[in-house]
Amino acid sequence: MEKKRFVITIGRQFGSGGRFIGRKVAEILDIPFYDNELLTKAAEESGLSEAVLDSYDERKDSFFSGVMPYNYGIDLSLGQKVFLAQFDAIKRIAASGSCVIVGRCADYVLEEDQNVVSVYISAPLDYRMKRVIQYYDIKDQKAKDTIIRMDKKRASYYNYYTDLKWGRAKNYDICLNSDIGVEKTAKAIVDFTKLKLDV
Amino acid sequence: MEKKRFVITIGRQFGSGGRFIGRKVAEILDIPFYDNELLTKAAEESGLSEAVLDSYDERKDSFFSGVMPYNYGIDLSLGQKVFLAQFDAIKRIAASGSCVIVGRCADYVLEEDQNVVSVYISAPLDYRMKRVIQYYDIKDQKAKDTIIRMDKKRASYYNYYTDLKWGRAKNYDICLNSDIGVEKTAKAIVDFTKLKLDV
Repeated sequence: MEKKRFVITIGRQFGSGGRFIGRKVAEILDIPFYDNELLTKAAEESGLSEAVLDSYDERKDSFFSGVMPYNYGIDLSLGQKVFLAQFDAIKRIAASGSCVIVGRCADYVLEEDQNVVSVYISAPLDYRMKRVIQYYDIKDQKAKDTIIRMDKKRASYYNYYTDLKWGRAKNYDICLNSDIGVEKTAKAIVDFTKLKLDV
Repeated sequence: MEKKRFVITIGRQFGSGGRFIGRKVAEILDIPFYDNELLTKAAEESGLSEAVLDSYDERKDSFFSGVMPYNYGIDLSLGQKVFLAQFDAIKRIAASGSCVIVGRCADYVLEEDQNVVSVYISAPLDYRMKRVIQYYDIKDQKAKDTIIRMDKKRASYYNYYTDLKWGRAKNYDICLNSDIGVEKTAKAIVDFTKLKLDV
């Protein structure tokens, strides 16, 4: 019997360990893992086809309704074109089989897909500072500044390209505080995915 | 061996089934359940002692720092006195043994308690409308109005009495979308509590 396709999307505060957790979830479930870097690569490879852009006509949210009345080929900024190419890459990747996708508003891109579990990971500032200092080789005060700046950047990106607000519990299937550690948070996501989608 | 004490607090959007879910969690774990009504009763029975009020001096958040420079006995509104009495009741109830507490900013009251799992429950508007129509005998448009009004009331109450924002994922250990149903949401909370607190 063919296994049911399912996708886990993960949004995360900077330094919360979201990427590590996503990788761990993918490992436990033995499915591919995509982060920003891999999505950007996938988007570059495919580019932005006419067919893809045409399909955005139907969307009613602020970003799409804002850009779609115009000739996108001319009027879109590079950032917007990259977003649309990634949007398309996420759709294709998600349709092709089970996977974990971290970042890039994947929860929003796939919001109409019934086989998705959308996850948001946060953690207290102290916990994130420790992680950032450990993994990015950044010192104390600079770690805090980096966290604040990166979270602002992620929130702006998400709030600009979707009609939702980043980090609001109601947008996601499950939000977790990762101060219980990477392993336990990954396990909680796996447990919830099995519970929700019966996979 | 004596069992470890633990407390599960539940904040919830109106109509999300949070109270039903809390009751189910308490049933599964065989521990007492407290909702607004029971907390109000507990607070009325105990009243507001001098000792209780003295202890709030140490708190630094907006509500407490706003009221504490004054003579609270004279300057507090009835609403504020009720809040403080409930605050005290939640502290006592939580200290006395494992339980589930729904509402009344219990997550905030117990934020320094290490044996707490704080939960927030949300659900899509359509799902909540169905529940409100079914359980509160309210008709369509009125159900929507009631949900919006009640959520505003809960957000105002929470944002006034705490220094946090209601419904922001980062304030809670786990946030769940209850459109998977009462049973599954309760199971997810029980699973997570066991995972986090090893109970």
